[in-house]
Amino acid sequence: MPLSFTPAFTPPFTSSGRSALVQAPPWHYAGWLVNVAFEFDAERGAALVPAELGAATGKGCVHFADWQACGDDGHELLDPVYAQYRETIVVLEIAPKPGEDARFYCPLIYVDQDISMLRGWLQGWPKKIGNTWLTRSMPLIHPAAAPLSAGSRLGASLSVKERRLVDASVTLTGEKAERLGFLAAPTIGAVGWPDLTQPGSTATPCYLRADIIDRVESGWTGGSATLQFHDHPVEELALLGEVRAGAASAGWMGLTVRGALAV
Amino acid sequence: MPLSFTPAFTPPFTSSGRSALVQAPPWHYAGWLVNVAFEFDAERGAALVPAELGAATGKGCVHFADWQACGDDGHELLDPVYAQYRETIVVLEIAPKPGEDARFYCPLIYVDQDISMLRGWLQGWPKKIGNTWLTRSMPLIHPAAAPLSAGSRLGASLSVKERRLVDASVTLTGEKAERLGFLAAPTIGAVGWPDLTQPGSTATPCYLRADIIDRVESGWTGGSATLQFHDHPVEELALLGEVRAGAASAGWMGLTVRGALAV
Amino acid sequence: MPLSFTPAFTPPFTSSGRSALVQAPPWHYAGWLVNVAFEFDAERGAALVPAELGAATGKGCVHFADWQACGDDGHELLDPVYAQYRETIVVLEIAPKPGEDARFYCPLIYVDQDISMLRGWLQGWPKKIGNTWLTRSMPLIHPAAAPLSAGSRLGASLSVKERRLVDASVTLTGEKAERLGFLAAPTIGAVGWPDLTQPGSTATPCYLRADIIDRVESGWTGGSATLQFHDHPVEELALLGEVRAGAASAGWMGLTVRGALAV
Amino acid sequence: MPLSFTPAFTPPFTSSGRSALVQAPPWHYAGWLVNVAFEFDAERGAALVPAELGAATGKGCVHFADWQACGDDGHELLDPVYAQYRETIVVLEIAPKPGEDARFYCPLIYVDQDISMLRGWLQGWPKKIGNTWLTRSMPLIHPAAAPLSAGSRLGASLSVKERRLVDASVTLTGEKAERLGFLAAPTIGAVGWPDLTQPGSTATPCYLRADIIDRVESGWTGGSATLQFHDHPVEELALLGEVRAGAASAGWMGLTVRGALAV
Repeated sequence: MPLSFTPAFTPPFTSSGRSALVQAPPWHYAGWLVNVAFEFDAERGAALVPAELGAATGKGCVHFADWQACGDDGHELLDPVYAQYRETIVVLEIAPKPGEDARFYCPLIYVDQDISMLRGWLQGWPKKIGNTWLTRSMPLIHPAAAPLSAGSRLGASLSVKERRLVDASVTLTGEKAERLGFLAAPTIGAVGWPDLTQPGSTATPCYLRADIIDRVESGWTGGSATLQFHDHPVEELALLGEVRAGAASAGWMGLTVRGALAV
Repeated sequence: MPLSFTPAFTPPFTSSGRSALVQAPPWHYAGWLVNVAFEFDAERGAALVPAELGAATGKGCVHFADWQACGDDGHELLDPVYAQYRETIVVLEIAPKPGEDARFYCPLIYVDQDISMLRGWLQGWPKKIGNTWLTRSMPLIHPAAAPLSAGSRLGASLSVKERRLVDASVTLTGEKAERLGFLAAPTIGAVGWPDLTQPGSTATPCYLRADIIDRVESGWTGGSATLQFHDHPVEELALLGEVRAGAASAGWMGLTVRGALAV
Repeated sequence: MPLSFTPAFTPPFTSSGRSALVQAPPWHYAGWLVNVAFEFDAERGAALVPAELGAATGKGCVHFADWQACGDDGHELLDPVYAQYRETIVVLEIAPKPGEDARFYCPLIYVDQDISMLRGWLQGWPKKIGNTWLTRSMPLIHPAAAPLSAGSRLGASLSVKERRLVDASVTLTGEKAERLGFLAAPTIGAVGWPDLTQPGSTATPCYLRADIIDRVESGWTGGSATLQFHDHPVEELALLGEVRAGAASAGWMGLTVRGALAV
Repeated sequence: MPLSFTPAFTPPFTSSGRSALVQAPPWHYAGWLVNVAFEFDAERGAALVPAELGAATGKGCVHFADWQACGDDGHELLDPVYAQYRETIVVLEIAPKPGEDARFYCPLIYVDQDISMLRGWLQGWPKKIGNTWLTRSMPLIHPAAAPLSAGSRLGASLSVKERRLVDASVTLTGEKAERLGFLAAPTIGAVGWPDLTQPGSTATPCYLRADIIDRVESGWTGGSATLQFHDHPVEELALLGEVRAGAASAGWMGLTVRGALAV
């Protein structure tokens, strides 16, 4: 039965569409990111990467982000509970097929509010709720400011359902760094939903990636890092086994998403 | 491209399915509910009720609930951050078509965690995140216990994105009460998601209702009530205009959901 | 310099006293409690119990509580964000001096809101913020209701600063149980604050206990339990070493505090 | 009775002092601040400013801050749930006595975690728990970045106990601005605690101000502002009547507190 309302972009559906959890793209995001590349036993990747996409290479990256997001009119910036959220993104490199470039796959990602969660699902990011903390760099010379210069130490953590899942730290070198993880290559995710009207239904997954335009960066400041994925009764990051932190970086970036691309 | 993993019930998809946000039904729910029936100008219902379902009758109910939910093995009860959540459910009566029974439609509903949000979407409840508070009755004669007896006063509130949206209070009569709102009649919701790979796509809504089995109740204790829906820049409850609180009740109920029914 | 305002009970001080974080007692509390007694190596108690009070006996109890609190007019019950909080209380038995009765000492206690934190400090409870979850028993026969009868399983947890600190579970026997922990004997705490106008000042501790009147109970239902105190970079419960869960119980209780007693 | 432990700085008291909620100063703070000066009917200030300090001049400022704080070893920056918090600070100017300079008084201030709350109380800030949101400026040219340049719009809000209490917005001019509020003049607060062992005791207030050293600033970028204080059943900011937003600014600052000064 069709809905009589002017099409709303998402539920809840109302006559005006004002209550919709998410409004239509474009979605503009700007954020502070702390990025930690890591290596793990590639065979363990099969627990988290579907074989069709290719095998895990044993390389990955975790991104901790403090985002600000808005639509074209930017009204969310005037009531920032609607704009801001923190996120932890785990991406694993998948071996390219002949003639293809490197890509990442995102098995697990965690945010702290509902708008971002749904916007993510629509783009293929399989988000759950989790609490991310990350040190911010401020343009001050002061013991609490962690400025973007050699010797500053930054920390980051993720907890899910009242348990610490990820701990990371970065000591900045002050030198310019390369792009890491999803900043460096297209990143694919899988979503899809079961149909509860059909007994025994399970999700039909779709592989998607965000259709990103208008990307800007502040430049990335490099560092060395530590990283731990902790055991958790539900979240499966520890299945990657021992992870060895590699290159790390911090900086700001902005991007605009206008939709999603099927993979 | 099909996913190689054993089908998981929802994202995130992993080889084991352990990280899935939601596991397959049956889902068992038991909760403490405070229910406040209300009346409003029926013509205002068109802002929130799609015409195809029938017109709003000017009757509705708001339910405040403190739930505990689990699957068949009940493991969530041993780690209750996985089991518990609070919820505010608004339902509006829709005029039955000839030969039909009364039904309710749920335009807006708010929970405080992710598992419940997705489980709700799969059943047709258009949930968003919100913070619900409701006084609990304890089996004690004590000034802070609000026991289920004449004269006890209970309060309930909902806030969404840092703003109070609903305030209610109930003074118990101590007498047995009838079922109200979604406790009394089938309740329909609408969900559906846009396809971001198609520019201009909006959600294709589906009308669903939960397929409920094995329902138990403690009996409902009646009361008189007050109710206010506050203005909010996003949430549209205040479009119902002045609401007049009617019958109210409080009590416990359990139910099991095995799936959803298309409407 | 004296304050011109009519004395407020606590800061913030305003002319009306309305904004004070805490109003004067009596304070009425009613709650659902899950209690787990435990044993530990008594010598380890010296890390958490000051020697003046007597030595730790190697017995203790952890209480998980879901409280509702109000003043004499009970207005908090009508706006329950002001009434409700969850709490984890750890108490350790101290060996009585000749002629004295058994007593408990509370080294660590955690709540989830500010009013309760300050009210606690004024009574000698050294509260910090932490997140407590505990399964509730509902008067229903249903898989999610965990009724107060043989075989029901209850869980409880505490996390502090995004890390799980305590996990407990209780399987009810359905039999009546004795009072445990602070329900069974007076419990002492220590508070006191440094004077920042004096360089090098540290807190001058005071030993206090709550002055409790008008206590009521629902009766306690017994059970067997499991209990773990996890390592934490700040919280020191794991210094008690391996703890062995003993008797456990669950039930409701109410009490009224009219002040504090110096010890 | 003296405590046998090595003096801890605050409760909870343990043998090691590790669990103390607050460790001894110095305390280093660095933060992003959005500042909105305002005017109000000076006579209304008597509701919030004690007469002994002098009369309210009808000028005030509200500061929204996103802080990062640590001790000398900076370990909190490596686990930022221990370092970060958001705060709303309301200060009212008090008419100087002859020969004195302008000063501010802080009647009401709100933070979102416990460590900051206690550290504040020890310095005279009468903190309560509240949720502050404020837009951040990022060094990017992007619709979501709100850079520190002409035309950028920033929002800020405070909610307390699930109700919006303050809303503000700032449109940056991009020009350099003067210091506002507590950034421009010493600011006094009042704390003090009742003794619950004495029936009828109320708090004995002390006037204090922070002893600040080593202050740095990024420079302040000016703007025009809007500001509303909303009615609230407990919080009394609306007693100031209609407030007229004046000068506004945004920027970063760092400071170190080594103690408190009696006033």
